[in-house]
Amino acid sequence: MFVNQLPRYEILSEQALDAIDATWRRLVSEIGVDFQDDGACDIFAKAGQRVEGHRVRLDPEYVLERVAQAPETFDMQARNAARSIRVGGSNMVVASFGGPPFIRRGDKRAEPSLAESSDFVRLCQSFPEIDLVGRVLEPSELPAETRHLDLISMLISLCDKPLVGMGGWRTRSEDAIAMASIVFGGEDRIREKPAIIEAVNPNSPLRFDDRMIGTLLAFAEARQPVLISPWILMGASSPVTTAAALAQGAAESLAGIALVQEVSPGCPVVFGTYISNTDLRSGSPALGTPEAMIATLAAGQFARRFRVPIRIGGDGHTGSQLPDAQAGYEALMAMIPTFLAGGNFVVDTIGWLESGLVSSFEKFAIDIELLRMLEWTFRPLEVNEETLAFDAFEEVGPGGHFFGCQHTLDRFRTCFYEPLLSSRDNLDRWTRKGNPDTASRANDIVTSTLERFEPPPLDDSVREELDAYCERRRREIVASGEIAY
Amino acid sequence: MFVNQLPRYEILSEQALDAIDATWRRLVSEIGVDFQDDGACDIFAKAGQRVEGHRVRLDPEYVLERVAQAPETFDMQARNAARSIRVGGSNMVVASFGGPPFIRRGDKRAEPSLAESSDFVRLCQSFPEIDLVGRVLEPSELPAETRHLDLISMLISLCDKPLVGMGGWRTRSEDAIAMASIVFGGEDRIREKPAIIEAVNPNSPLRFDDRMIGTLLAFAEARQPVLISPWILMGASSPVTTAAALAQGAAESLAGIALVQEVSPGCPVVFGTYISNTDLRSGSPALGTPEAMIATLAAGQFARRFRVPIRIGGDGHTGSQLPDAQAGYEALMAMIPTFLAGGNFVVDTIGWLESGLVSSFEKFAIDIELLRMLEWTFRPLEVNEETLAFDAFEEVGPGGHFFGCQHTLDRFRTCFYEPLLSSRDNLDRWTRKGNPDTASRANDIVTSTLERFEPPPLDDSVREELDAYCERRRREIVASGEIAY
Repeated sequence: MFVNQLPRYEILSEQALDAIDATWRRLVSEIGVDFQDDGACDIFAKAGQRVEGHRVRLDPEYVLERVAQAPETFDMQARNAARSIRVGGSNMVVASFGGPPFIRRGDKRAEPSLAESSDFVRLCQSFPEIDLVGRVLEPSELPAETRHLDLISMLISLCDKPLVGMGGWRTRSEDAIAMASIVFGGEDRIREKPAIIEAVNPNSPLRFDDRMIGTLLAFAEARQPVLISPWILMGASSPVTTAAALAQGAAESLAGIALVQEVSPGCPVVFGTYISNTDLRSGSPALGTPEAMIATLAAGQFARRFRVPIRIGGDGHTGSQLPDAQAGYEALMAMIPTFLAGGNFVVDTIGWLESGLVSSFEKFAIDIELLRMLEWTFRPLEVNEETLAFDAFEEVGPGGHFFGCQHTLDRFRTCFYEPLLSSRDNLDRWTRKGNPDTASRANDIVTSTLERFEPPPLDDSVREELDAYCERRRREIVASGEIAY
Repeated sequence: MFVNQLPRYEILSEQALDAIDATWRRLVSEIGVDFQDDGACDIFAKAGQRVEGHRVRLDPEYVLERVAQAPETFDMQARNAARSIRVGGSNMVVASFGGPPFIRRGDKRAEPSLAESSDFVRLCQSFPEIDLVGRVLEPSELPAETRHLDLISMLISLCDKPLVGMGGWRTRSEDAIAMASIVFGGEDRIREKPAIIEAVNPNSPLRFDDRMIGTLLAFAEARQPVLISPWILMGASSPVTTAAALAQGAAESLAGIALVQEVSPGCPVVFGTYISNTDLRSGSPALGTPEAMIATLAAGQFARRFRVPIRIGGDGHTGSQLPDAQAGYEALMAMIPTFLAGGNFVVDTIGWLESGLVSSFEKFAIDIELLRMLEWTFRPLEVNEETLAFDAFEEVGPGGHFFGCQHTLDRFRTCFYEPLLSSRDNLDRWTRKGNPDTASRANDIVTSTLERFEPPPLDDSVREELDAYCERRRREIVASGEIAY
């Protein structure tokens, strides 16, 4: 698990932070937040908050008291104990989930197949840079109503890392939790140490719909962690100014956390704010932008006031259609501020293109390389007698070179970052390899990783119990006539 | 001119800075610096420093006293007064010079033609993100001995920004200064307010050769600014540890600045340190790496101790052979720390590929886009009543959208970054354009910029005087049998 050991980069004054703070307080108390679920409204009403229809006006002090019940850090168990994680503090975990509806295959984009969907999970399992895995691609060949059961089964078969839920609504979330319970030996075992987390996105501005609330309540009741993170596109779902979006993001996330804590005091949560901007010419989301970088830096700094793990920014965001130069620089533009501002929980987007409409195997390898580079970068720079290396200067002297000196020989194997994907070949060597561009090399990495893949072990009895659960639930869902939307 | 208004990101403790400080002092005083020029050694000997052969051992306090004579900021004039610059403080200027020997033309790399060389200057003139221009590509069809005269003439014809010298040796530098004097109305006019700067690279470790010293002295005597900046590749020209490279960079740069100040007290200088690493498998330079990012952050923080303008990091560094994803992310990996650490003078590398062996028109447009994005990012985030936009929230309410609200209408034209190169088209629109990747769109930007290009005005009398100077110097150089090396 990666520990971010460089200092946090802070761009806002205390005065600016206070002004944002005052605004989220006004938003929740004067304008209020819509919770489109009678049960949630009852919970808030019983807690003494002002409820009119589905509009809930919250006392900011009440919100902060609830948020203070959430832990500053929390642990999650993995089937492979070596892959269990701690969320919060200086730790940064990366979660891959929330898959785009399409996949890029060379020149075309298409709906992902079941094979592609499982290959994506295999890749997430293979790279240690990814700590949690969920629904990464939704294969359209599976029936929508019961697809979540197939996907959780696949996930458990191919992956031994902590899990992310399937989104959706209450029954779907209950299925995800039930299946995690089977894997870890029962509901009590995951209540003691959570095994599955779910992301709840408010419907910005200032609204939680019934599906999101259902998921939130299911996870809170089972005492599994809930990430509350608005996905704010300035100009569409928030005002065009970053200060306003920051206040709004806090209002939404804190209101959701208050509900979690009201239902399940002490339940682990992640405070999230994702902010980027709409392209106002086309109305499309614009990702990996300067606005997103600034907002990520500011959101991280502001979020630390609430003393819970934080999700900010993201990884690999880009509007590019292809795994090309724009994809490379926008992805890094999104990742660097996430590290600079000390994000604890980095969400999805590994392999994304087209602002999240499309997944790409090549982009997956690019994003892994970027994570590896930044994990290498965000370590403390050692300054001591050994690294200052006066003896090496004495040995080499002015005008010499350091290739063969003792100081280099002692360190050359591990002193520098070794790229996974980036080429450092000279022209001759690169030409002999067939002039591969980054996307072509990325494809090679994906292919060889999948060739080497071996699924992690899973007890037959667990497998049988999972299959029986899915079988029963499939019958129930079909009989109920439930429709996925 | 861009003013970097975000805070500096600092990663080193005062203790670590002091340890690096103690080490450069030991390097200059105990090991010493080689100045391979009798004149330079005499100057140091007269100043009371210990000289044996060409090895000069410097008293660190003497060095710091000399460095303290240099100004904290300085101005440079441009032929177009609107393009005059101030170097230092929070200002950041970008200089394009020091051209690679090759150019990439689609699938091939080749020696640049005169037409390509002048097109590169036209591009540098056209984009406001570039503040100073020098020798950006060396066309091999011009004779090497007199090429600098042709290039300065071309530069003056096509560009009205402050100038960068031609590198090389003393007579070449004298030619560059003489021609700048002609443009600006005489030597006194540029002594009052400099018009041309030169970069002097020590031959790391700890050596200045006769060519570099000749250039340094020519510029110092004419009171034009000198940038002293080692180009350190850890593992080759320095130890493999960043702490050592930082101390070495400071020793080299400060020793060079001491010489400038001894010759011309108060002459403007830039303190530079560029550090990246060698790829120890191939021996090639590796650019845009994690090591370079860390070193740039640390170098900027350390350099501020000396209270002169600083050059750190760079722009657009990449080892990639093509203007592809690697070129995009490595270029940004090099640029972001330059902004974070507050570089004042950003050197060359616009359009570079293959670690500086190759220039690329497509990469030029990519690097301009990255500069534009970061200049947009590194502005203060405004937090006030207007940007907190409580009225907009009242107007829109929970669950609404902000596309048409008054707060958006008042700001939508200028509130977000508008890309030059990045695509935000949806798939349909992008497909109708012919599926252009970033490199293809970059090529279109270059082509249309060159089509629109108009050279800046230049007085006929100045043109004639420059031509006469070049004519005379060509004859002298040919008669002298001088050989370029």
